Amino acid sequence: MHAVHYELIKECSRTGARLGKLHTPHGVFNTPMFMPVGTQASVKTLSPEELYDMGAQVILANTYHLFLRPGHELIRKAGGLHNFMKYKNGMLTDSGGFQVFSLAEMRKIKEEGVTFRSHIDGSTKFLSPEIATQVQEALGADIAMAFDECIPYPADFEYAKKSTERTSRWAKRCLEAHTREDQSLFGIVQGGMYPELRKMSADALTEMDFAGYGIGGLSVGEPKSMMYDVLGETTCHLPKNKARYLMGVGTPDCMVEAVALGVDMFDCVFPTRVARNGTAMIPEGRLVVRNAAYAEDFRPIDERCNCYTCRNYSRAYIRHLFHAKEIFALRLLTIHNLYFLLNFAQQMRDAIRDDVFPEFKEKFLSNYKI
Amino acid sequence: MHAVHYELIKECSRTGARLGKLHTPHGVFNTPMFMPVGTQASVKTLSPEELYDMGAQVILANTYHLFLRPGHELIRKAGGLHNFMKYKNGMLTDSGGFQVFSLAEMRKIKEEGVTFRSHIDGSTKFLSPEIATQVQEALGADIAMAFDECIPYPADFEYAKKSTERTSRWAKRCLEAHTREDQSLFGIVQGGMYPELRKMSADALTEMDFAGYGIGGLSVGEPKSMMYDVLGETTCHLPKNKARYLMGVGTPDCMVEAVALGVDMFDCVFPTRVARNGTAMIPEGRLVVRNAAYAEDFRPIDERCNCYTCRNYSRAYIRHLFHAKEIFALRLLTIHNLYFLLNFAQQMRDAIRDDVFPEFKEKFLSNYKI
Repeated sequence: MHAVHYELIKECSRTGARLGKLHTPHGVFNTPMFMPVGTQASVKTLSPEELYDMGAQVILANTYHLFLRPGHELIRKAGGLHNFMKYKNGMLTDSGGFQVFSLAEMRKIKEEGVTFRSHIDGSTKFLSPEIATQVQEALGADIAMAFDECIPYPADFEYAKKSTERTSRWAKRCLEAHTREDQSLFGIVQGGMYPELRKMSADALTEMDFAGYGIGGLSVGEPKSMMYDVLGETTCHLPKNKARYLMGVGTPDCMVEAVALGVDMFDCVFPTRVARNGTAMIPEGRLVVRNAAYAEDFRPIDERCNCYTCRNYSRAYIRHLFHAKEIFALRLLTIHNLYFLLNFAQQMRDAIRDDVFPEFKEKFLSNYKI
Repeated sequence: MHAVHYELIKECSRTGARLGKLHTPHGVFNTPMFMPVGTQASVKTLSPEELYDMGAQVILANTYHLFLRPGHELIRKAGGLHNFMKYKNGMLTDSGGFQVFSLAEMRKIKEEGVTFRSHIDGSTKFLSPEIATQVQEALGADIAMAFDECIPYPADFEYAKKSTERTSRWAKRCLEAHTREDQSLFGIVQGGMYPELRKMSADALTEMDFAGYGIGGLSVGEPKSMMYDVLGETTCHLPKNKARYLMGVGTPDCMVEAVALGVDMFDCVFPTRVARNGTAMIPEGRLVVRNAAYAEDFRPIDERCNCYTCRNYSRAYIRHLFHAKEIFALRLLTIHNLYFLLNFAQQMRDAIRDDVFPEFKEKFLSNYKI
């Protein structure tokens, strides 16, 4: 049995939605789940206590960033990420693959791994399946991800096939390099927008002994309808007894569609990033609280919301803080947006449990404006 | 009886130090006290709950800033500052005088008041004793301050005398303009560095019916020894049954010297400002936690400190967050520094109660390096 394993509790009778539990060394967590992103060992602006209060379960940290600064050896000495940042619930680290391809400069991909220049100080760095695995063992999250290449969109079939095959070979090397028994490794299904490559990738990875499966390379610029099509062509090839994690997706419309296709886990910087831009998430879409319309609006962001921000503060106050460049504004909006998505995941779980998920999905999408 | 009044509990037998209580509409608070500064209706980076947890009593907000943005009428509509920012303990607003003279541009002082240009949008504004009082009534803090001119250092005797006399006339106009019975007005003693003008100012103000006295125009660039001399020449002319507030002073060495001269209240942006610059306050002076020396230092900022930051996080983690430009670093250092000063005030109160204040002062100053 893997240190991290998925327990299927209930399946929706009319869609692919699943209610489940993710067992980890740091607790048992409910799926479908949204994972707040703590890129640099901090969910931006928040304390661990604020995360517990809003119901956060597993949070994510980025291997690429922590590898470059402060370095994984320092975090190993600190007793791992959990102890370094004092977060006691579940943690997941990505493999660094996505960031190497999206943030780093001068990258060169070879079979052995990827050479790139740090976006922080320009120094030359190297990540391979083995190194990414060792770095993640030093970071010590409950879940580590296999090192992969995220195929850009659009990509021609030949490139996508070659890259996907390499990602599968890299996945095998990650498994072979992985030694920590209190940490589990998830493989990452790639394949671009090609259903046959998605099947090839899923088949190759499910032959290996991964504790769960990431689904990478989606939400990279393709139309949403294409994303849902490819996602459906991916999850159908994944085993029911393992968790499925759609990487980098976390707007509520995409989440509810993906849950219907059998996805269990999500992460995204969207809620925290737009918070810092003065935007609050609401069931109808977005409320740009920095707008002049809210200058003398003494209602909370959302009267239906039970988050710390909405229980205490007015739109007028948050707008004032935002325009006055007060950091507390960023905290209040980050709390609200993460609570919104964590609560949204809870609502999806309730709907699956009560076997009304299709109705929940339809009602939500009919009100939601992007 | 004023809405805010001072109760003298005990006097030090060998210095001018006083243990007291400040009664306000929002609670009874212990003096000597340090008041955290919430310039724009937010103590930078912190929530009210974090302030309560660290023992904050009265906090300060700046009339000048709130007059310009979001405007006092908006805060009046919000139910006053307490309700706008959801702070339930005591609050004090300054009069705007100091900021008009330190931040605003193109200021013109006349007997009627001061015309200046907003540092935010360049618009022309006017503050007078009457307007500053009305603005503070709209803000609704427990304590409002009289509108004064802060005399720069150095200033010649003739200018200082003329300005001090005008500040006394302005103080009278503030009292006449003040109408709120659930708010009390403090006068502000000026007089530059001239003991005879300080006496003149104190005599003029104590003839009026103020609830307490600010001591302004100190810590404006003069040597510390001069500040202490002038402070002693001021407090000796103030009545024992009213609170004395040394405005803008809040380093521990100055606080302990000023308490020995009979000061009860302090405020300063120093602890919150240096926190945001990566500096922690400790009994020995300062610890610049962003320095390379602390990169792998897994001890707390101060092992003797019981603040949230020191109970949970290492120097290495805070340093990492600081260099990674993570906002949580600013929160953690702000919490530590404010806790340090609030706890320092508590230690001074304990020492006065136990009649060991001179020994406490000597021991503290012998360890403290500026």
